Amino acid sequence: INLCHLLSTIDMGIFQRFARIPLKSTYIWSLCRQYSTDLTAVDRALIQHRCVHNRGLGASPGNPGAAPPRLPFSRVTQEDLAFFRTLLPGRTITDPDLLKSSNVDWLKTVEGNSEVLLRPKTTEEVSQILRYCNERNLAVCPQGGNTGLVGGSVPVFDEIILSTSLMKQVITFDNISGILTCQAGCVLENLSNYLEERDFIMPLDLGAKGSCHIGGNVSTNAGGLRLLRYGSLRGTVLGLEVVLADGRILNCLATLRKDNTGYDLKQLFIGSEGTLGVITAVSILCPRKPKAVNVAFLGCSSFQQLLETFQCCRGMLGEILSAFEFLDASCMSLLEKHLKLTNPITESPFYIVIETAGSNATHDEEKLHKFLEEVMTSSLVTDGTVATEATKIKALWSLRERVTEALTHEGYTYKYDISLPVEKIYDLVQDMRGHLGDMAKNVVGYGHVGDGNLHLNITSPSKDPALLAAIEPYVYEWTSKWKGSISAEHGLGLKKRNYIYYSKPSEAVALMGSIKAMLDPKGILNPYKTLPDNIH
Amino acid sequence: INLCHLLSTIDMGIFQRFARIPLKSTYIWSLCRQYSTDLTAVDRALIQHRCVHNRGLGASPGNPGAAPPRLPFSRVTQEDLAFFRTLLPGRTITDPDLLKSSNVDWLKTVEGNSEVLLRPKTTEEVSQILRYCNERNLAVCPQGGNTGLVGGSVPVFDEIILSTSLMKQVITFDNISGILTCQAGCVLENLSNYLEERDFIMPLDLGAKGSCHIGGNVSTNAGGLRLLRYGSLRGTVLGLEVVLADGRILNCLATLRKDNTGYDLKQLFIGSEGTLGVITAVSILCPRKPKAVNVAFLGCSSFQQLLETFQCCRGMLGEILSAFEFLDASCMSLLEKHLKLTNPITESPFYIVIETAGSNATHDEEKLHKFLEEVMTSSLVTDGTVATEATKIKALWSLRERVTEALTHEGYTYKYDISLPVEKIYDLVQDMRGHLGDMAKNVVGYGHVGDGNLHLNITSPSKDPALLAAIEPYVYEWTSKWKGSISAEHGLGLKKRNYIYYSKPSEAVALMGSIKAMLDPKGILNPYKTLPDNIH
Repeated sequence: INLCHLLSTIDMGIFQRFARIPLKSTYIWSLCRQYSTDLTAVDRALIQHRCVHNRGLGASPGNPGAAPPRLPFSRVTQEDLAFFRTLLPGRTITDPDLLKSSNVDWLKTVEGNSEVLLRPKTTEEVSQILRYCNERNLAVCPQGGNTGLVGGSVPVFDEIILSTSLMKQVITFDNISGILTCQAGCVLENLSNYLEERDFIMPLDLGAKGSCHIGGNVSTNAGGLRLLRYGSLRGTVLGLEVVLADGRILNCLATLRKDNTGYDLKQLFIGSEGTLGVITAVSILCPRKPKAVNVAFLGCSSFQQLLETFQCCRGMLGEILSAFEFLDASCMSLLEKHLKLTNPITESPFYIVIETAGSNATHDEEKLHKFLEEVMTSSLVTDGTVATEATKIKALWSLRERVTEALTHEGYTYKYDISLPVEKIYDLVQDMRGHLGDMAKNVVGYGHVGDGNLHLNITSPSKDPALLAAIEPYVYEWTSKWKGSISAEHGLGLKKRNYIYYSKPSEAVALMGSIKAMLDPKGILNPYKTLPDNIH
Repeated sequence: INLCHLLSTIDMGIFQRFARIPLKSTYIWSLCRQYSTDLTAVDRALIQHRCVHNRGLGASPGNPGAAPPRLPFSRVTQEDLAFFRTLLPGRTITDPDLLKSSNVDWLKTVEGNSEVLLRPKTTEEVSQILRYCNERNLAVCPQGGNTGLVGGSVPVFDEIILSTSLMKQVITFDNISGILTCQAGCVLENLSNYLEERDFIMPLDLGAKGSCHIGGNVSTNAGGLRLLRYGSLRGTVLGLEVVLADGRILNCLATLRKDNTGYDLKQLFIGSEGTLGVITAVSILCPRKPKAVNVAFLGCSSFQQLLETFQCCRGMLGEILSAFEFLDASCMSLLEKHLKLTNPITESPFYIVIETAGSNATHDEEKLHKFLEEVMTSSLVTDGTVATEATKIKALWSLRERVTEALTHEGYTYKYDISLPVEKIYDLVQDMRGHLGDMAKNVVGYGHVGDGNLHLNITSPSKDPALLAAIEPYVYEWTSKWKGSISAEHGLGLKKRNYIYYSKPSEAVALMGSIKAMLDPKGILNPYKTLPDNIH
């Protein structure tokens, strides 16, 4: 019943205009009815995909992550360009060479064909752009640092690229409360440097910090390396300024720790990947810079021992624990091979990065040493090294942070970002190795143990449809069976949009569709992203 | 323009049916046009209130917190009662004596006239109740522990009371991740006790813990005493199960630290005070029980010294600081007078409660003693006492936690729950004392310094319209001038709903109205609450 209801909500008008193969709706409906009883949510989702594909819409049956057909948005005309050039003189880019890097994602797996890139400096300019585009029915792809991994930050067809790269002003910083307010295009690392000079730090940190924008971080609800300690952006972001699809400016840029006056609208825009509005400014609560930081790099001979080390660590390091990350031996080989990094300890099946951050160096070192003594004595850890000095800390962190980069040298990488109960996270890697056998060049696992978040990466010399068919939907079914999330922190973007039903019930997805329709009735904001094709 | 737009969206149909004084819409429109240029948001909000009052709807002009006229919901019939009795045998309460305590709020300032109280045990029962009520157009007031302070948890007229008091099962607890899943009616203190036996604690704690329900805590986005350390419920609540107005069950009861698959729907229900859905189950991330807890009770001779003590404390106690609360000398007098509590230190204008929670008792005590030495030596603090033992800790905490209770013995209390930049919070108390002079019996301030959250309470022997007129809108204007929030943690409920424009722009309030209309088109869920009358 759910399935039929959902299918019935599809906009047939759009389908009829764009389907190359004639609709055989009677056939599809009977198929749906036939399958609509006694199905799990996952079964239903798969059939939904199949139904869509049977219609000759969407991607090939084996690849629901590929682009659907272009929706009937207007195409950019000379009049449109004239409007943009008047509004943004010198900041309306149409040179194909200059557009190239904005049309392709960081992984070079998704490429759009946009012919215009707009670089506003102010919220007012963003508002005028969107008001115009909404009236003209022109699709818009908001873009920050373009470091996303799910094809969410690049156009799929000819969407206008709206870049936040010139919106890079710090607006205010209050060094009593630690609340920073800045424009959306500020690069995360620049904000970190700005704050460190003032004895504060950003509550988030991630490998892409040198390029990613805070607006993009918030739009994608980025997790990263400090979430274990400082919590998610849903708690640390105190206010947002957002431009809605029709150009209205929604100013919820509060700088208060607590505010219970009505619904918390800013939450709608955190993690919605630019599909509900364009974030133009952020206010965020920043922690004090810790007086002492230590990093330990440890080796474990099994994942079970790694988990026991984690439990011990939480008990003994308690409030000073700021990160607990891991990588497996395959990751280490890739770091050595492609990036010429050196393994600082003896070879082990698993490596852990532990960071402590506290207010008293002596206390922290004492706690850390006691913990290390405990895990060494009980043979949970086989070898290890500790850094207290900034350059050595950086070197140890790079072993964890640069795995993503090392993987890009391996050919084509199929990337999965999975949340699971922490005791299950490595089972998926091992299971996948057995399942794929020789088909994959490498199956590697790394990620955030403290958050139950595995980055599973499968490499192959080049794009390989047979390999992909062996991975998917297997990996999603596995995750769904253990009530995990098929995207812990990367979002859904273009690539994962049709897999949403593995982690969310159909009632929830339908409600997301209603929210999208309410805030962006013409669907101009980042189309083809986040929501599945069957409710667009 | 905004004003006229907003007014034009009011449902004239409802007004015409219920207004006792004939509408003079031409007059009101010209008034609006006349005022619609060059007004601040606050001016606009005030005029909106006046417009509504001019229509003879709403409360008296001096009291926008009073009840508006009853909306045209159906009235409960014998057939309705028969349905409820079949669904909830023995749990459909109609005895007026048994209904009494559910019809009146804890402060005894708001009293409804409901004739039926329903006590479901399961989500399925809640679903059936709401599906029925929605079809019959019967209004529903969801009720947890009924400890709210803004008249949000009691009926205004004859709304059916839907109590979560029998939904008190713990569903699961995972002692590796610390994730608790339970029904909405679990009493906070019971959950705390359950967790402490398992070496964990709840991430929130508040004075009403003995009565309040976790579902109510989440619905009101309760703050409380541990927010400084563990953050807001927006970060610690990992999943919710919610029944929507039409009876649909939305299962977003994830138990994952991270999940970026689509929009985070659960955020809509956190802090929306039961106006968008009824929370039936909660999953929440719980911290490990700290191995060492210390509480210090200190005296300061000025609020400036208190602020300097706070800054020093954050630097020196860092990651072990778990609360920084204050009360003024007037609060202490009330505690002594009405509750016979004893001030453990010499009399001071201001008192501070500092709590530390950490994993190493020796380290924590050393940090605390160093800090106390520093603030005593520099004369920031005039006297103090420290407790490390559980009963003494409890005694010190009760000096802060029982202020609300002491105030109830003073007669009538006008309560304000304000967020402000922390350096401003006590200025409001002093300013208010000067402004009110002899009109008020007491003007007292206490609250959460660490969160910039002041509880301003003004007492009078009995309800006093002249005093109220002197307090409001003065207190809201003051707060708005400093970009504060007129409700930091209590919510808006019935009493504060029409003051929302002091803290939120009209575009945001209009969007809240759209969300309400989308999720509860008939408006049956907790009517007259949270949103202002002019967008109901």
